[in-house]
Amino acid sequence: MIKQLIQNIEKKDAPIVVGLDPMMNYVPAFIQKQAYEQYGETLEGAAEAIWVYNKGIIDATYDLIPAVKPQIAMYEQFGVPGLAAYQKTCAYAKQKGLVVIGDVKRGDIGSTSAAYAVGHLGMVTVGSKQYAPFDEDFATVNPYLGTDGIKPFIDVCNECNKGIFVLVKTSNPSSGEFQDQLIDGKPLYEYVAKKVVEWGEMTMDGDYSNVGCVVGATYPEMGKVLRKLMPKTYILVPGYGAQGGKAEDLVHYFNADGLGAIVNSSRGIIAAYKQDKYARFGENGYADASRQAVVDMIADINGARAKA
Amino acid sequence: MIKQLIQNIEKKDAPIVVGLDPMMNYVPAFIQKQAYEQYGETLEGAAEAIWVYNKGIIDATYDLIPAVKPQIAMYEQFGVPGLAAYQKTCAYAKQKGLVVIGDVKRGDIGSTSAAYAVGHLGMVTVGSKQYAPFDEDFATVNPYLGTDGIKPFIDVCNECNKGIFVLVKTSNPSSGEFQDQLIDGKPLYEYVAKKVVEWGEMTMDGDYSNVGCVVGATYPEMGKVLRKLMPKTYILVPGYGAQGGKAEDLVHYFNADGLGAIVNSSRGIIAAYKQDKYARFGENGYADASRQAVVDMIADINGARAKA
Repeated sequence: MIKQLIQNIEKKDAPIVVGLDPMMNYVPAFIQKQAYEQYGETLEGAAEAIWVYNKGIIDATYDLIPAVKPQIAMYEQFGVPGLAAYQKTCAYAKQKGLVVIGDVKRGDIGSTSAAYAVGHLGMVTVGSKQYAPFDEDFATVNPYLGTDGIKPFIDVCNECNKGIFVLVKTSNPSSGEFQDQLIDGKPLYEYVAKKVVEWGEMTMDGDYSNVGCVVGATYPEMGKVLRKLMPKTYILVPGYGAQGGKAEDLVHYFNADGLGAIVNSSRGIIAAYKQDKYARFGENGYADASRQAVVDMIADINGARAKA
Repeated sequence: MIKQLIQNIEKKDAPIVVGLDPMMNYVPAFIQKQAYEQYGETLEGAAEAIWVYNKGIIDATYDLIPAVKPQIAMYEQFGVPGLAAYQKTCAYAKQKGLVVIGDVKRGDIGSTSAAYAVGHLGMVTVGSKQYAPFDEDFATVNPYLGTDGIKPFIDVCNECNKGIFVLVKTSNPSSGEFQDQLIDGKPLYEYVAKKVVEWGEMTMDGDYSNVGCVVGATYPEMGKVLRKLMPKTYILVPGYGAQGGKAEDLVHYFNADGLGAIVNSSRGIIAAYKQDKYARFGENGYADASRQAVVDMIADINGARAKA
């Protein structure tokens, strides 16, 4: 699946991914109103609102971008109807030719991770039938439980041509609390990175592995080191834009081949119309504002890389 | 909420929790058949089968036990219908007076953890209305992202009288890969334990905190040390029975007050009818087999504690 993602990135010349994290206060009032008129102020109404909002953004940007990354928590907070909107969003994005990275951060003991792997990336058996319940192309995975929590995901990657991104160094302010702790003089995140390389060898797909990793844009010095430690690992980079990561900080997340990293922006794209810079689009033009923000983000990232 | 859990434990004299992790191969054939006749071999059919199976077990055991711990992955693997069965199971168990520990192992950056916290333990706002989408009493949480990933859960614990169990030392074979790594001579899990104590002080509920932790039954020596490091922290103990943890190993997970630990068994209870020991109940008597296994587990744990 990493080959497919790379193809999409090269075709669009855009090493970026749009994070579909629909906080309700991002969703324009007219969309909320329409959804509540139809379904009431219910979980179904909320789910309809975020689905309509997402569809607008996908329709306005899909020709420019290789992938989307829906954050499942933003759907799960609206319960079962919210998760139905998540599933619908994933399916629609795939229909538009986009690679879907499910930001689910799952991870458990072996048999339980196997259930997550099957539900998100693989096929589940019901009697004599098989179904792909969520069918994302990639899922993000938490490594705290070690290899036996990761291995079931790798098996499904190999069976179904899918991929995962393992959390190595996350973008949030307190990520260092555990991740930066020194073990024999090296931080824990480097220790996890070494395992990511080992796991990656089990599911190579061309020059890169189907096991990628997550390294936040907010820690560029660490990103530079981690890039070298994991030469065949694609890095999914959250934290650009709203969280503070800058394009010039990210040039070292890429390999010499121009590949190896994909930078996420969520709020900066999907709620662009709320920024002064894109206010001219207005609420009704939220999707066009997102499109312009995508154009600007690609220029920003590719510009910084050209200069480097 | 920990006060409520303790009340339930004392009332039933049973420091145990039944893990509702319905693997499809545990579900008796007659239940599967009936569900597939009604809904076809579909995700809805699978969801109906696991719901009927769960209901049978809850009905047969609720008077003996303080709590259940549904493992969401086992439902999530059947997609949206599976998650509806999860929600239905949680609601039914609460109706029967049981405390529900959602084994969801969520955890993310701050704003995203807030969405998980709201979806599982709190109330989500839709227009002028509020809903409690999954409404478990406790959720398990992964600490890898540090304090800002945990704090939103604590806020919801305080607002809505709920609780969490933070993964400290998990029961699986490779849990040591990262969790046992030494930081200044102390393993990472002890470092996490110290944070659990800090977090716990933010949400005390009687003598114990609403922030509990997870320590596997499979690592009794570590459990003994961790018990002393976290005197006001309830320990949720997976790994008893099928995974290899023995009652006599678990006596040190309890405090001198007789409280402080709750031991989980999943397969050992819910698939008891598949063991030679309970084969006499047959498939049709799977729920009665579960009841007998609960009786035996309580006697085993309380017996070992009496001897200690």
